[in-house]
Amino acid sequence: MSSIDHMKLFLEPKSVALVGISRRTGKGSFNILESLINYGFGGEIYPVNPNAHQILGIKVYPSVNDLPAPVDVAVISTPRSHVLNAIRDCADKGIKAIIINSQGFADADEEGRALQEEIVRIARRNGARILGPNTLGVFNAFNRFTSNYLVLAKNEKAPVGVICQTGFFLGFSNFGLIGKGVDLGNACDVDFADVLEYLEDDPDIRLIVLHIDGIKKGREFFEMAKRVSTKKPILALKGGRSEQGARAAASHTGSLAGNDSIYDAVFKQAGIIRARGVDELEDLTKAFLNLPLINGKRVAIVTPTGGVGILASDACKEHNLELAKLSQGTLKRVKDLSPQWTTVGNPVDIWLASMTHGYKKVFKIALEAVLNDGNVDAVLCITPSYGMIPEYDFMDASEVIKRTVTTFKDKPVVLCIYGPCTREMASNLEETGNTVAYTDPKRALRVLSILGDYSKYLEKVKKSG
Amino acid sequence: MSSIDHMKLFLEPKSVALVGISRRTGKGSFNILESLINYGFGGEIYPVNPNAHQILGIKVYPSVNDLPAPVDVAVISTPRSHVLNAIRDCADKGIKAIIINSQGFADADEEGRALQEEIVRIARRNGARILGPNTLGVFNAFNRFTSNYLVLAKNEKAPVGVICQTGFFLGFSNFGLIGKGVDLGNACDVDFADVLEYLEDDPDIRLIVLHIDGIKKGREFFEMAKRVSTKKPILALKGGRSEQGARAAASHTGSLAGNDSIYDAVFKQAGIIRARGVDELEDLTKAFLNLPLINGKRVAIVTPTGGVGILASDACKEHNLELAKLSQGTLKRVKDLSPQWTTVGNPVDIWLASMTHGYKKVFKIALEAVLNDGNVDAVLCITPSYGMIPEYDFMDASEVIKRTVTTFKDKPVVLCIYGPCTREMASNLEETGNTVAYTDPKRALRVLSILGDYSKYLEKVKKSG
Repeated sequence: MSSIDHMKLFLEPKSVALVGISRRTGKGSFNILESLINYGFGGEIYPVNPNAHQILGIKVYPSVNDLPAPVDVAVISTPRSHVLNAIRDCADKGIKAIIINSQGFADADEEGRALQEEIVRIARRNGARILGPNTLGVFNAFNRFTSNYLVLAKNEKAPVGVICQTGFFLGFSNFGLIGKGVDLGNACDVDFADVLEYLEDDPDIRLIVLHIDGIKKGREFFEMAKRVSTKKPILALKGGRSEQGARAAASHTGSLAGNDSIYDAVFKQAGIIRARGVDELEDLTKAFLNLPLINGKRVAIVTPTGGVGILASDACKEHNLELAKLSQGTLKRVKDLSPQWTTVGNPVDIWLASMTHGYKKVFKIALEAVLNDGNVDAVLCITPSYGMIPEYDFMDASEVIKRTVTTFKDKPVVLCIYGPCTREMASNLEETGNTVAYTDPKRALRVLSILGDYSKYLEKVKKSG
Repeated sequence: MSSIDHMKLFLEPKSVALVGISRRTGKGSFNILESLINYGFGGEIYPVNPNAHQILGIKVYPSVNDLPAPVDVAVISTPRSHVLNAIRDCADKGIKAIIINSQGFADADEEGRALQEEIVRIARRNGARILGPNTLGVFNAFNRFTSNYLVLAKNEKAPVGVICQTGFFLGFSNFGLIGKGVDLGNACDVDFADVLEYLEDDPDIRLIVLHIDGIKKGREFFEMAKRVSTKKPILALKGGRSEQGARAAASHTGSLAGNDSIYDAVFKQAGIIRARGVDELEDLTKAFLNLPLINGKRVAIVTPTGGVGILASDACKEHNLELAKLSQGTLKRVKDLSPQWTTVGNPVDIWLASMTHGYKKVFKIALEAVLNDGNVDAVLCITPSYGMIPEYDFMDASEVIKRTVTTFKDKPVVLCIYGPCTREMASNLEETGNTVAYTDPKRALRVLSILGDYSKYLEKVKKSG
C-alpha cells in the first residue's frame, strides 16, 4: 500500500471507528462523534466504548473486534494506558490508518516515549500508519471528515492544505482559511513528507501551509518539498527558533527543533516560503491565493496621503523592492490634472488632483496608468475606508479597484486600507479574488517582496531544467 | 507672547477667520466652514471671501480688514498666489496665529520655496506664528475646533496628542485615537518643539504621538522632547529613512529627512519611543495608554495552544524578554489539575487541565497564579475568540480576564486573541482600560519589550536626577 493510499484513508475515509469515545456529549465535552455528526460526515461511523450501547442515537460497539465491517480509519482517544491495546485491536482488525488523539507520549515523560516507540513497532508489523499521537488529527472540508473535537468550519473548501503540529492551525487561527488539514502532533510515523506527497497533485488544493515544531525525516521532507514547491507554493512557520522555544517544542510534541539556520537553508533550497509569525503567515496565505506572480521588483505606489507614501517608499527599500521609474506618459496623466507647480513622481500622490477632479476619477486614471506602464511590475494602492460612510462616499475607491483588478490580472495589486471601515472594505475587495488588503504598507510590500522571491525561484527552476 | 500662548491661539481659539473659504459646500467640497459647523465649534467664525455674502447661513466678509472684531486664529486656504496678501492682511489686523492650508510652497518648486520664506519674514516682523503651509492644521476634540476639511470625530477626547506632517495621522489612521492634533505640514515656523511644549503639562493629554518627515529645529526638539518624555510617553514614527523615502519627503513637505541613524540616537537619548510602522504605532499607542509600567523582563505565558506558546517563546527571545522561571507554587497549581505525567512549565499550557476541569476555571487559576508570582513581571495570555459563539461559550475567557486585569493592576497583561470573533473580543476587553489585545504573540511581546525599555529609561532618569 503506497503512502498516498494511506493518506487517502486518513483524509477521505468512507468509514471510521472512534475508539474510546466518551459518553459525554454537549457543550464542552470534546466529543469527536458529535463533531462528525454536526459537521455532516456522510460515511459510516462506528463508536467503540465497552460501557455504552448507544451515543447520540448511534449504535456503540464494545470493542474494535466487534465491528461489523472493516473500516478505513480508526481514531483513538482513550487514556494513554489503553492506547497500546487499542492499537493491537485495530491491527488485528486490519485497520491501516490510525489517528491517536491521546496525549502523554513523547510529549510527556520517559514512559510515554517508550509507549510511542512500541506503537510504531506494532503499526510497522501490521502495515498500518499512525497519525499522532497528541494530535487533533485531520480536517477535510471536501468530504466533511474530521477527527477534531472542536469544529469551526468557517471557511469551507478553501484551496489551502495545512500540515501542522498544533491544533491552532487546523482552522482556529484568525484567518481560518483551510480546506484540508493534518495535525501531525508528535509525528511518530506520518510526517510532513507523507502529507506533502498527498497534496502534491490534489486538485482541491492550490497552496500548502506548514507549521513545524521539528521535522524527523529531514531528507524525505527536503526532496518532497522541492518537488511540490514548483507545483504549488509552500508557506512555512517554524517554532522553536530560540533555545527557550526549542525547549517548549520538546515538551509540546517531543520534537527536536533543530538548528534554525539549517531550516533556513533547507527552506530556501526547497523553494519553501518562510513566514516570520502568525500575522505574516496569514498575510502571505491570502496573497499567494489571490495574486499573480510578479515579474520584477519595480513597484508603483498610488496614494492620497503623501506621508504614508513616504513610509511605503522606506518599506520598499527595507523589503528589497524598487520604486518604479514611471514613464513620462504615466506621470503626465496625473500632472495634467494637478496644479501647474506640482511635481508628480512615484509614489504618485493623487491628492491635489483629486481635490479638483474628484477622488474616484483621479484614482482610476492613476491606477490604470501605472498598470499599463511597462516600467511597473506591481502596484500598491493606499486608500481610505471612510468612503464607506455615506457622507464621504466620494472618497470610496472600492468600485474602481474592483473593476481594475478584475481587468488587469497580470500584475499584482496590493492594497493598504486605513480608517474606520477598513475591515469591511478589505473583505469586500478581497472577494474579487484578485487583490489583497493590509493595514500597513509595510505588510503589503513585504508580501510583494516574498511573492517576487518565489516568482524568481520558479523562474530559476524552470531554466535549470 | 510666549510660544505656549501662541499654541493656545492655534488649538483653543475663541474666534477664527477662514480666509479664502469656498462657496462650494456639501459632499466633496472640502469646506472648512462646513467642517467646523458640523463638528460643533462654539466660537465665533468669520468667513472671508470677496465674492460671497453668506455661506451656510453665516455672514461672509469681503476681506480680513473688514472683520468686525479681532480674531485668535486665521486659516488661509486661498491659491498659493494669494497667500502673501492674505498674510499681510492678517498681520495688519493683528492676528497672531495663522494656519496656511494652501499647498505649493517648499513642497513644490523654487517659487514656492521663495514664497514660503517671505511668509516667514512677514510673520516674524508682526509677531505672528505660522502653522504650515501645506497642512490640514489642527484638531481639538476638547473644544471642537478644527481646520481640517474632513472631520472624522471617531474617538472623542482621547488623551492622545498628535504632532504630524501629514493629515493621515490627524484621525484618519486605522486607530484614529486622537484628542488634540497638529499637522505641521512644511513646518516653516511652528515646529515639533513648540507643540511638545504646549502638550507638556496639558492635563487632557497622557500620550504624545509624533509623525516626522524631517525636523528643522533639531536642538530645540531634543531638549524639549527630553523634558516632556519624563512626564508622558512620546511615540515617534519617522518617514524618509531610506534614500527614496527621503526624496519623497522632500517633495511632500520640503523636509530634509536627515540621516536616520542620527534620529535613532536622538530618539534614544531623548527617551522617545520609536515605532517601526503604522501598525506598530497603533499597537504602542493603545499599550502605553492602557498598561502599567513594567519592572523587569520576566514574562509568563498562559496558553491553551502549545504551538503558539512556542512561537511566543521565540518572540520573547527576539524582543529581548525572558521567560519567567515560575515558582514551584505557581507550577503546582496547574499541575494539580493535569494528568500525572504532565510537565508544567512556562509557557503554561493549560489545555490538558482545561479538558477535565473546564477552560474558564483553569484559565483563571493559571492567570492569577502567574500574576501573584514574584518571579513574573508581565503576562501574555493567549486565548481564542470563538468562545463568543454561544456553542463554544465554555471557552470564553472574557469575564475572567476582565475581572483579573481590573484587580491586578500593577503588572501589564497583554493578550493574543485568535479565531473568528477576535475583533469583537479585543474591543470588549480593551474597554476595561487595563489590557490590550493583538492577533500575533510577536506584536504583544514587542509591545511589552518597548514598555520595558521606557520603564527602564524613566528609572535611569529618576536616579540620575
